[in-house]
Amino acid sequence: MFYVIGLGLCDEKDITVRGLEAIKGSTRVYLEAYTSILMVQKERLEEFYGKELILADRDMVETQSDEILKDADKEDISLLVVGDPFGATTHTDIILRARALKIPTRVVHNASIMNAIGACGLQLYNFGQTVSLVFFTDTWKPDSFYDRIAENSVLGMHTLVLLDIKVKEQSEENLARGRKIYEPPRFMSIPTAVSQLCEIESMRKGGILSPASTLAIAVSRVGGGDEQRIVCGTLDELSQQPEEVYGEPLHSLVIVGKRLHHLEAEYAEAFAARDSKWRDVASSIYKCEFD
Amino acid sequence: MFYVIGLGLCDEKDITVRGLEAIKGSTRVYLEAYTSILMVQKERLEEFYGKELILADRDMVETQSDEILKDADKEDISLLVVGDPFGATTHTDIILRARALKIPTRVVHNASIMNAIGACGLQLYNFGQTVSLVFFTDTWKPDSFYDRIAENSVLGMHTLVLLDIKVKEQSEENLARGRKIYEPPRFMSIPTAVSQLCEIESMRKGGILSPASTLAIAVSRVGGGDEQRIVCGTLDELSQQPEEVYGEPLHSLVIVGKRLHHLEAEYAEAFAARDSKWRDVASSIYKCEFD
Repeated sequence: MFYVIGLGLCDEKDITVRGLEAIKGSTRVYLEAYTSILMVQKERLEEFYGKELILADRDMVETQSDEILKDADKEDISLLVVGDPFGATTHTDIILRARALKIPTRVVHNASIMNAIGACGLQLYNFGQTVSLVFFTDTWKPDSFYDRIAENSVLGMHTLVLLDIKVKEQSEENLARGRKIYEPPRFMSIPTAVSQLCEIESMRKGGILSPASTLAIAVSRVGGGDEQRIVCGTLDELSQQPEEVYGEPLHSLVIVGKRLHHLEAEYAEAFAARDSKWRDVASSIYKCEFD
Repeated sequence: MFYVIGLGLCDEKDITVRGLEAIKGSTRVYLEAYTSILMVQKERLEEFYGKELILADRDMVETQSDEILKDADKEDISLLVVGDPFGATTHTDIILRARALKIPTRVVHNASIMNAIGACGLQLYNFGQTVSLVFFTDTWKPDSFYDRIAENSVLGMHTLVLLDIKVKEQSEENLARGRKIYEPPRFMSIPTAVSQLCEIESMRKGGILSPASTLAIAVSRVGGGDEQRIVCGTLDELSQQPEEVYGEPLHSLVIVGKRLHHLEAEYAEAFAARDSKWRDVASSIYKCEFD
């Protein structure tokens, strides 16, 4: 059996009992190497699971799937992924490959940011399509996310914006010299995300995002107990918070849609940034009728 | 500490290690009584968790939250819910009440249908807002879901349709006589759901749903190993399958949006109903360019 097991969002204890049993019964256990986005290191997972983990970067999962799947028709092999196996990064390729090889497969689901974002108080029902925001460079500013946010916005729906991470990046010099030396991982911060969103708004002028009157909610480490951060306010307010307000990465951002219900606004209000105009804007611009 | 713990989708082993630890350390553990939508009974949960569970129906969670929260400032109290605490049914009311009472709260996330639906092969990114479909009666056919599906459809987005369940229903006679005797739980089947969708289409005539050329995917017991069912085809095809094809409840349905990518269509094709025109329709109507 080939198991694809979601680890959930934070640390070694977010795995399900079913997932843990599958790991313990597996002869090989691969860990997809986005580990930097979990709150813990590989060694701590290994100790807790009682198993050695084989690091498999995204490239390996995509191009060397036959090596991962080797003998999975006779033994149990597990692939561990952060969040859920069908979350923001899907694992359909390797499952299709297992299917072609007639290897039985079982997916062990878990929380991912795609559903845990409900912790911010907005109803999952009212979210439209999800978008990703990548780091801009001087010459590359992909902006298709803006059209998606606009589509959601016109209908009043919320938009979950997933922020870029860069892992295993090489400097131009190291790349040119063929040296496999990687830069430290980079995670997009909330102020950077807001700045990029507003930069595209000022170019496209669709009237979709307004620094002073578009509400947004920043989250990080959802489900991570004391490490969880949820901060809401206008885009301007969020861009002006000191970075420590947002805690450790990974960060995500929600653009609040105009169908905002007053119960959603009231729940989220507990997370309002200091001196935020959250309630004023929810009332005057979003037409929330508070009790 | 007041814990709100997601149980995931299927059985006693879908709980996370963190959730299980919280249960074991709690002096009282409530189980929200939608248990019929889990695949297992309360007794099996109790045996596995090593704890007695206090049944709390939805009404009790909403109106008697102070009883549930009693002493949670001094002891650990847990409330167990199916799926994720912020899934289709949210638990913001009781968390707000805990907040008002200054009781520290921790949510333990888990998979819910809102993210596990990715198992059907459609990208979660491409889903629009989620809708609920309730059982029609002769005199009550609420159809606002149609507008939401239409909004998603115009943009090419997929729609997750959650199907009604009726638990703790009383017959008119028992209700009139004040007898607290409840009917057996009812779960909407896929053919019923398709029939209701097409009934509203034929009344509203928005051209959003077509029995012969709208693709849909039925799922049940996602993550439930051998009990999981995923069946795809046109609406007509899904309505004509014998009910046993869909396995045990709870069922959900996805209306496929026109932005369907050929990789999504190829992944889902393995779940096509017998003799389904899935690929033909994906190619001719949805313009998927298969390799």
